[in-house]
Amino acid sequence: MRTYLDCIPCFFNQALRAGRIATNDENKLKNLLDEIGLMLRHIPLENTPPETGMLIYEKVREITGEIDPYKKIKRESTEKALTLYSSLKNEVEKSNDSLLTAIRIAIAGNVIDFGVSMDFDIEKEINEVLKKDFAIFDYYKFREYLDNTDEILYIGDNAGESVFDRILIEEMKKPVIYVVREIPVINDVTYEDALQAGIDKVASILSSGTSAPGIVLRTCSAEFKRVYKNSKFVISKGQGNYEGLSDEKHPIFFLLKAKCWVIANDIGVNKGDIVLKGINV
Amino acid sequence: MRTYLDCIPCFFNQALRAGRIATNDENKLKNLLDEIGLMLRHIPLENTPPETGMLIYEKVREITGEIDPYKKIKRESTEKALTLYSSLKNEVEKSNDSLLTAIRIAIAGNVIDFGVSMDFDIEKEINEVLKKDFAIFDYYKFREYLDNTDEILYIGDNAGESVFDRILIEEMKKPVIYVVREIPVINDVTYEDALQAGIDKVASILSSGTSAPGIVLRTCSAEFKRVYKNSKFVISKGQGNYEGLSDEKHPIFFLLKAKCWVIANDIGVNKGDIVLKGINV
Repeated sequence: MRTYLDCIPCFFNQALRAGRIATNDENKLKNLLDEIGLMLRHIPLENTPPETGMLIYEKVREITGEIDPYKKIKRESTEKALTLYSSLKNEVEKSNDSLLTAIRIAIAGNVIDFGVSMDFDIEKEINEVLKKDFAIFDYYKFREYLDNTDEILYIGDNAGESVFDRILIEEMKKPVIYVVREIPVINDVTYEDALQAGIDKVASILSSGTSAPGIVLRTCSAEFKRVYKNSKFVISKGQGNYEGLSDEKHPIFFLLKAKCWVIANDIGVNKGDIVLKGINV
Repeated sequence: MRTYLDCIPCFFNQALRAGRIATNDENKLKNLLDEIGLMLRHIPLENTPPETGMLIYEKVREITGEIDPYKKIKRESTEKALTLYSSLKNEVEKSNDSLLTAIRIAIAGNVIDFGVSMDFDIEKEINEVLKKDFAIFDYYKFREYLDNTDEILYIGDNAGESVFDRILIEEMKKPVIYVVREIPVINDVTYEDALQAGIDKVASILSSGTSAPGIVLRTCSAEFKRVYKNSKFVISKGQGNYEGLSDEKHPIFFLLKAKCWVIANDIGVNKGDIVLKGINV
């Protein structure tokens, strides 16, 4: 997805939100925003938003000196999600379509996104997403791809959300490579977070090699690009990965909640909608 | 009021909103935001937001070549407000406290603010504000000042809103100098807009001399500053004038609806609250 003009004020909001978690020093925060201001003219609208996100969160690290401002928040998100794990497994088991219920749960977990907001209620979200209609529902294609694959490349999004991904991974009953960010960026899932969520028990974990808050292929490692290229079934979680991958010529299934109206417009749905969208499938 | 860090993303939103009314050219709009980005480090947090607003809207004019993007919108706002004039006059006449009702109506008119949003319903707003409790209610001081003054300096805010100001001016039954912006900025009231609202029938009209979207004294004309200095009873409408004047050492009554949470925090009220606040009184 390209950068829309409306993404620009949002870049400043994101920098401010992340900066404030790292420091209370108003001069540093002003300096951070000033630096983003200077960067702006070097960011063409053709870039995907996570390419810019990468630069923004680099600046946050550089100016605040804090390399992982969301560390504590991420740990707590995962702990919280783990307390819900058993009851969500029950939910899947008792449902008529356990795969679909697991997909819904994985999407509900996508609300744990500090890049968008600090304010969400995960239990309320789960209850809503379990009942909500999909705005795009390429479920039958998804099942077809799942039946015909011998390996799934599952691109994770946020820490905490990974616990919900684990439930879907367990339900798909096929070998999974779970992709994490190379270094901490916002509350995106890293290797350490995936371990805390128990992903290592159900999948092999691979770093994308990027520090962007979304898959930006040109910034990914050669190894990730090779695995991606050879993969026949890619699941991409969340907005950041959608932004980075939506123009790819590869079969990908996007699972997300459209939390931002710019992304919702780009997908062709309304803000708040849940989406299971396959491209090139 | 100082600039808060949260004002910075909002500056970009404001530039984008005004720019889009002036042009559809995405390159020009990107250029506009880039230029605001470059300006940012020269804007200290000590500045009041309308000082920055002045620079932003200058850039909008310079880059889009459109000196009055809100011209049509302003004319339509005033026309719409004029259709409500008679029924609002009735509302005042039939009320127990006609001055207070006129104050409420003048505050309701403050919702016509394209600096904050394009999305409001003036009739709904009037019905709400006529019944709503004030979060700050310095009404008795206001009456006392009104009784003891022989001239009121009334600083207008937005076009359209002026029709509602006229109702309050008529109700106060004292000579009024009504202050307008020197040149068009957002949908702020200018001399031409005030004439369309019929302000000339009830007050003398004076330009502040500034192109800031709020009174920033250092940018005002010598004439305005003299009148302001000598005035014993100043009424200031709206957020922009509050931002510019809130730290003044002069008796001023602010009439506004807190439409933005940053300003609401600065005043010590909640977003959406209505305020009749006197300072130095």
